[in-house]
Amino acid sequence: MAADVVDRAMRAAIAAGEDVRGTTSPNPPVGCVVLDAEGRVVGVGATQPPGGPHAEVVALREAGERARGGTAVVTLEPCAHTGRTPACAQALSEAGIAEVVHAVSDPNPQAAGGADELRARGVAVRGGLLAEEVEKGALRAWLHFVHTGRPHVTWKYAATLDGRSAAADGTSKWISSAASRAEVHRVRAAMDAIVVGTGTVLVDDAQLTARDPDGNLRAKQPLRVVVGDRELPATARVLDDAAETLRLPGGDPDAVLRSLAERGAVDVLLEGGPTLAGAFWAAGRVDRVLAYVAPVLLGSGPAALGDAGVGSISQAWRLWIEDTTMSGPDLRISAVPRDR
Amino acid sequence: MAADVVDRAMRAAIAAGEDVRGTTSPNPPVGCVVLDAEGRVVGVGATQPPGGPHAEVVALREAGERARGGTAVVTLEPCAHTGRTPACAQALSEAGIAEVVHAVSDPNPQAAGGADELRARGVAVRGGLLAEEVEKGALRAWLHFVHTGRPHVTWKYAATLDGRSAAADGTSKWISSAASRAEVHRVRAAMDAIVVGTGTVLVDDAQLTARDPDGNLRAKQPLRVVVGDRELPATARVLDDAAETLRLPGGDPDAVLRSLAERGAVDVLLEGGPTLAGAFWAAGRVDRVLAYVAPVLLGSGPAALGDAGVGSISQAWRLWIEDTTMSGPDLRISAVPRDR
Ligand SMILES: NC(=O)c1ccc[n+]([C@@H]2O[C@H](COP(=O)([O-])OP(=O)(O)OC[C@H]3O[C@@H](n4cnc5c(N)ncnc54)[C@H](OP(=O)(O)O)[C@@H]3O)[C@@H](O)[C@H]2O)c1
Ligand SMILES: NC(=O)c1ccc[n+]([C@@H]2O[C@H](COP(=O)([O-])OP(=O)(O)OC[C@H]3O[C@@H](n4cnc5c(N)ncnc54)[C@H](OP(=O)(O)O)[C@@H]3O)[C@@H](O)[C@H]2O)c1
Repeated sequence: MAADVVDRAMRAAIAAGEDVRGTTSPNPPVGCVVLDAEGRVVGVGATQPPGGPHAEVVALREAGERARGGTAVVTLEPCAHTGRTPACAQALSEAGIAEVVHAVSDPNPQAAGGADELRARGVAVRGGLLAEEVEKGALRAWLHFVHTGRPHVTWKYAATLDGRSAAADGTSKWISSAASRAEVHRVRAAMDAIVVGTGTVLVDDAQLTARDPDGNLRAKQPLRVVVGDRELPATARVLDDAAETLRLPGGDPDAVLRSLAERGAVDVLLEGGPTLAGAFWAAGRVDRVLAYVAPVLLGSGPAALGDAGVGSISQAWRLWIEDTTMSGPDLRISAVPRDR
Repeated sequence: MAADVVDRAMRAAIAAGEDVRGTTSPNPPVGCVVLDAEGRVVGVGATQPPGGPHAEVVALREAGERARGGTAVVTLEPCAHTGRTPACAQALSEAGIAEVVHAVSDPNPQAAGGADELRARGVAVRGGLLAEEVEKGALRAWLHFVHTGRPHVTWKYAATLDGRSAAADGTSKWISSAASRAEVHRVRAAMDAIVVGTGTVLVDDAQLTARDPDGNLRAKQPLRVVVGDRELPATARVLDDAAETLRLPGGDPDAVLRSLAERGAVDVLLEGGPTLAGAFWAAGRVDRVLAYVAPVLLGSGPAALGDAGVGSISQAWRLWIEDTTMSGPDLRISAVPRDR
C-alpha cells in the first residue's frame, strides 16, 4: 500500500482513538482504519467500553467482505490473547487482511505476541508508524499504567503570569479565558477521574463536571474524587447526581492512586488546589502538567502551587516543555517532569 | 521598483536599525538601504551616535553616484528639519534619489514634513511598508518617548512556571538556562539603561553589564541605575568601572524616568527585583514585559513580582501576549499591557 495512503489512514485511526478517550479504561483507547485492497477506507473503529469489542473488530465489522486483501492500520499492536473478546490477531486474519500496520507495540506481557500471531497466519506486519504521536497522545496514560501500575496523573492548573491563582482578597473570577475554560471541559470529558482536595470543594463549591459550551452536561462524565478528611456540606455541588463522586479520606497520593486503579481509572486529572497538588509533587506523582497561564499580573494573592517538598534550588522539580499553544488570550503549556 | 526588491531592502534596513539599538538615543535607531536604478543594493546605513549622521546620509555616502535614479528604503520617514545634521530630505533629493519608501511616518511634530519636502523636490514617496514590524521593533521605545515624553520601560524577569524567583532558602542559581542568560546580555546591550533597586545589588551583588558568551564586556554598555536610599558597599560590583552607574535615591518611578529622560535615555530595562517592579506596575509605568519562564516548579520561595497595587481581581494588570518563543528549555514571553 502506498505510504501516503497508510499515513493518512493512521492519522484517521489516531483521531478515532482520541475520540474514545475516557470511555475505555482500563482498556486502551485504540483507533483502527481498514483499507480495502485498493486503499479505500472501508472501516473505522475504536475501542468500545469495557466488555465491548476492540477497535479492530469494530472496523472489520464495518468493512465486511471488503476487508479481504486489505490493510488494517491501528494505533496499537493487535492483541493475541483471548479475553472477554476474541483475539484481534485471529479476527484480522480470518477477515482476510493482508497487512497490518500499527503505531505502538503492545507493552503488556499478557497481550504481546499479536504481531507474531499475525505473521504465523501469513499476514504482513509493520510497527512504529507515528508511534511517538500515539505514545504522547491517546495511549500515554495507558502505557504509563502498564509500566508503573499507577494511573497517569495530569496536574492541570490556571494561574497568572506571576503564578497566582487568585487576588489578595481571594477573588479569581475569569483569571483564565472563556476559551481555556471550554477547553478544560473537553479535557475533563476525556479523563477517567478528576481529583481535588476538600479545600477546593469547600471554597469554590466546584461541581467538577464536563460540560459543553452551552453549559449542558456531556454524555460521559469522569468520576469526581474529593480527597481529605473534612466533611462536605450535603448541599455541595460535587455531591449532586450529575456524576459519580468518590470521597477518599486521608490523602496519601499513592493510596489515592491505588483506590483509583482498583476502580479501573487509568487517566486522572488532578485539578487542585495548591495543597493537594503540592502533596502529589512532593510524592513524585505528577506525570504531566497542563498549565493555563493567563496574561495577568497580580503581585499578591495565593500561589498556584503549595509546598511541594522543595527547600533548595537543587531539589526543584525540573520539566521539559512539550508544547505551548495559545488558548484564546491565555498560554497553554504542556510539560513533563525530567529524568523520569 | 519591483515590490519584492523593495521588501527585501526594507528587511535589510530593519536589520541595520536593530543593529544600532542602544547607541542612538535620544535619536531613533533607523536603518536605510539605497538601491540603484536597477534595484541593486549600493548603500546601507544606520543612525550614528548623537551628533553623527542619520541613516540616510550614511547609506547615501556609501552609494555615491550610484544613488542617482535609485530608491531609498528607510524605516522612518526622512527628516525635513535642519538640526545638528543637514535634513535628510534635502540630502536624498540632492543625491538624485527618485523614490523614497519608508515604514513609519515621523510622529515628531518638529521633524514632520520630510515626505512633503521630498515630494516638493519631485521625489516619489510611499509610506507604511512593514510599519508594524518597525513600530514593535527598533522604533518602539523612541515612538513611545515621542508620544509620552517618558522612556519606554521593559520589565524583564526570570521565574519558574509557578512564579518564583528563588527557592525557599534563597538559592536561585540557574533557574533560567544558559540560553536565556546569554539572550539577556544581548537585550541589555541594546538598551540605554538598566534599572534595579538597592535590594538586587545588596543581595546579588549583580554587575549589570552586557557581556558576550565568552564573558567579555561588550563594546557598548548601558547606563546602570540603582534606585533606593540604602548605601551600597564601595566594593559593590555595580560600582566598578565596567560601565557608568547612576544612583537615584527615593524611588518614585516617574522621578526615575524623568532623571533618565534628562540623560537622553529612551529605552530602559527594568531588571528588578520584585519590590521595584511592583512599584513600577503600581505606577502604571511598565510598557512591556519580557519574561523568561523556566520549566521548573518550586511551590515556595520569593515571588517574581511584589506588591503591584492590586488588591482585587478587578484591579489586575491585564496584558496581551505578543510573542512566545523557546529560549533553550525556557519559555520567553513578550507581553504588553492592555488598554494603554
Ligand atoms: N488555580 C487553580 O487551577 C486552582 C485549582 C483548584 C483550586 N484552586 C483554589 O485553591 C483554593 C483551595 O486551596 P486548598 O489548597 O485548600 O485546596 P485543595 O488542595 O483542594 O484542598 C486542600 C485540602 O485537601 C486535604 N488533603 C488531602 N490530601 C492531602 C495531602 N496529602 N496533604 C495535605 N492536604 C490534603 C486537606 O484537607 P482535610 O483537612 O479535609 O484533610 C487539605 O486542607 C481555592 O481557593 C481554589 O479556588 C485553584
Ligand atoms: N527573578 C528576577 O528576574 C529577579 C531580578 C532581580 C532581582 N531578583 C531578586 O530579587 C531579590 C531582591 O529583591 P528586592 O525586592 O529587595 O529588590 P529590588 O526591588 O531591586 O530592591 C528593593 C529596594 O529598592 C528600593 N526602592 C527603590 N524604589 C522603590 C519603590 N518605589 N518602592 C519600594 N522600594 C523601592 C528600596 O530600598 P531602599 O530602602 O534602599 O530605598 C527597596 O527595598 C534578590 O534576591 C534578587 O535575586 C530577581
